[in-house]
Amino acid sequence: MSPIIILVEPQLGENIGTAARAMANFGLEQLRVVNPREAFPNDKARAAASGADAVIDGAAVYPGVAEAIADLGFVYATTARVRDLAMDVSGPRRAAAHLRSLAGDAKATGVLFGRERTGLTNDELSLADAIITLPVDPRHSSLNVAQAVLVVAYEWRLAELAHEEKGLPFAGPDAADIAAKEDLIRLFEHLEASLDEAGFFRPPEKKPHMVQALRTMLHRAHLSEQEVRTLRGVIAALEARPTRPLPPHRVAARAKRPG
Amino acid sequence: MSPIIILVEPQLGENIGTAARAMANFGLEQLRVVNPREAFPNDKARAAASGADAVIDGAAVYPGVAEAIADLGFVYATTARVRDLAMDVSGPRRAAAHLRSLAGDAKATGVLFGRERTGLTNDELSLADAIITLPVDPRHSSLNVAQAVLVVAYEWRLAELAHEEKGLPFAGPDAADIAAKEDLIRLFEHLEASLDEAGFFRPPEKKPHMVQALRTMLHRAHLSEQEVRTLRGVIAALEARPTRPLPPHRVAARAKRPG
Repeated sequence: MSPIIILVEPQLGENIGTAARAMANFGLEQLRVVNPREAFPNDKARAAASGADAVIDGAAVYPGVAEAIADLGFVYATTARVRDLAMDVSGPRRAAAHLRSLAGDAKATGVLFGRERTGLTNDELSLADAIITLPVDPRHSSLNVAQAVLVVAYEWRLAELAHEEKGLPFAGPDAADIAAKEDLIRLFEHLEASLDEAGFFRPPEKKPHMVQALRTMLHRAHLSEQEVRTLRGVIAALEARPTRPLPPHRVAARAKRPG
Repeated sequence: MSPIIILVEPQLGENIGTAARAMANFGLEQLRVVNPREAFPNDKARAAASGADAVIDGAAVYPGVAEAIADLGFVYATTARVRDLAMDVSGPRRAAAHLRSLAGDAKATGVLFGRERTGLTNDELSLADAIITLPVDPRHSSLNVAQAVLVVAYEWRLAELAHEEKGLPFAGPDAADIAAKEDLIRLFEHLEASLDEAGFFRPPEKKPHMVQALRTMLHRAHLSEQEVRTLRGVIAALEARPTRPLPPHRVAARAKRPG
C-alpha cells in the first residue's frame, strides 16, 4: 500500500522518466500520468528512467485528475505556492509519516504533482485532502517535478524503514571489531616506550600531558584489532626495529646508535 | 558555514546545472567542480540551473580532489557501493545534523559527489572523513548525481531550520580546531614516505590498500591542527630524524646507518 505518484500534464517524457527513476530509488512502484503532452510511454521516458522500466511499463494514463484519484482514500497535492484554500499543509516528513500510518490501515493513497511551469490549478488542489510543500529557500522555490517526487519518495522510504540506519545499503566498521582496551593499552605502551627512547618527551615534565594527548587522539579513531596491529607495525617500521629479526647490517648499525 | 558541494569529474554540464538548482532550492551556495569534462561554466549548466546562476557563477574549478578539499575541516564522501574501507557510514539525515553542528563551530565542511557512472575511487574516499549513503531500494540503487545532491541539500536545510543551540554545560573537542585537509594530507605523505623508506609496504602490490587503511584510520580520529603537528613529531622521532637539528653524535650515527 505504498502511495501512488500522480503526474498531472507533464510536458516532457524525460521528466516522467526521471520521476520514475526517483520512485524506484526509494521503493515506490505505482505511477499514474494525467493527460501527458507526448504519447506515453515513450522512449525518452524510458531512457531517463535509467532501469526503472517496471515503473514506466506499469504506469496508467488518465484523462483528468478526478479519474486518476477516483479509487484512492487520501490524496496529497504538492505545491510551492501559497493558495487561498483552507487546506492542511505539511512538509514531506510529516506527510510521509501520515501516509505510512494510512498504509498500515490498508488505505490507498496518492500524491499529486503538477505541470512543470504552472503546477496544479486550484480546482485540482481542491480535489485533494491536504497539501505537501517543501522547505525550500524562498529565493529559489521552483523545483523540477522529478526533484519534488524524489524528496517525497525519500521521506516515504524513511518513514517505511522507521530508522534511517536500517535502510542503508551497507554499514560502517562493525563495532564488534573494535579492539579491546588491553590491545589498545599495549599499543600505547609500545608507542610511548619508542618515543621515550627517541627522546620525544621533552621537557620531561610535559610527558604526562603529551602521553594523555596521544592516547585520547588514538582513542578517538575507535581502532579495530587489525588496525591496532597495523599501527604497531608502523611504529616498529619507523623505529627501524621490525618484528622480524633484523638483518645483520641493521643490527650493526643499531649498535652504533647512541641512546 | 554551509557545506560546500564538490562534484568530481562530472561528464555533463546539465548535471552540474541541475545540482546547482537543487542546491539553491535548499539554501546551499558554494559549489566546487573537480576536473569537469566540458569547459565550465558553460551554457548547458546555466540553462539547467534554471535561475541558480549565482551558484554556477560562484563555482570554483579544481584539478583534483585533494586541492578541492584542502581548506576544509570535515569532508563527507557519497557512495552507493560497499567499500573495503573502515570509514563511518551515515545516512543523509544523521550527516546533515552533524554538518550543522560543525557549522555551529564555524568549521568549513564539504560533501563529495562522484562521477555519473563510476562514482568516487577508493583513493578519493580515503581523503574524506566519513561516508554518506542513501537509504535506497537495493534493486534500484543508482541515483543521478543531482538527485543525490538534492537529498543532501534537503536534509541540510531541515537540519538548519531545526537547529537548537547546544544546552550542555561543557563540550568535547572544539570542532573549530579540526585540521584542514591540506595539513592532514601532508601528514599522510610524511608517514607514507617514512614507511616506504623503512620497507613497510610489503608486498608492494598491497601498498595502495595499506595506504588507504592508514588514511581512513587517521581520518576517524578527527585530528586537530595541534594533533597533526604532534603526530608529525612522533613520526620524525621514531624515524630518528627530528625536525630540530640533530645533535652531532646523532648525525654521525645516522651516517653509519644503511638505507
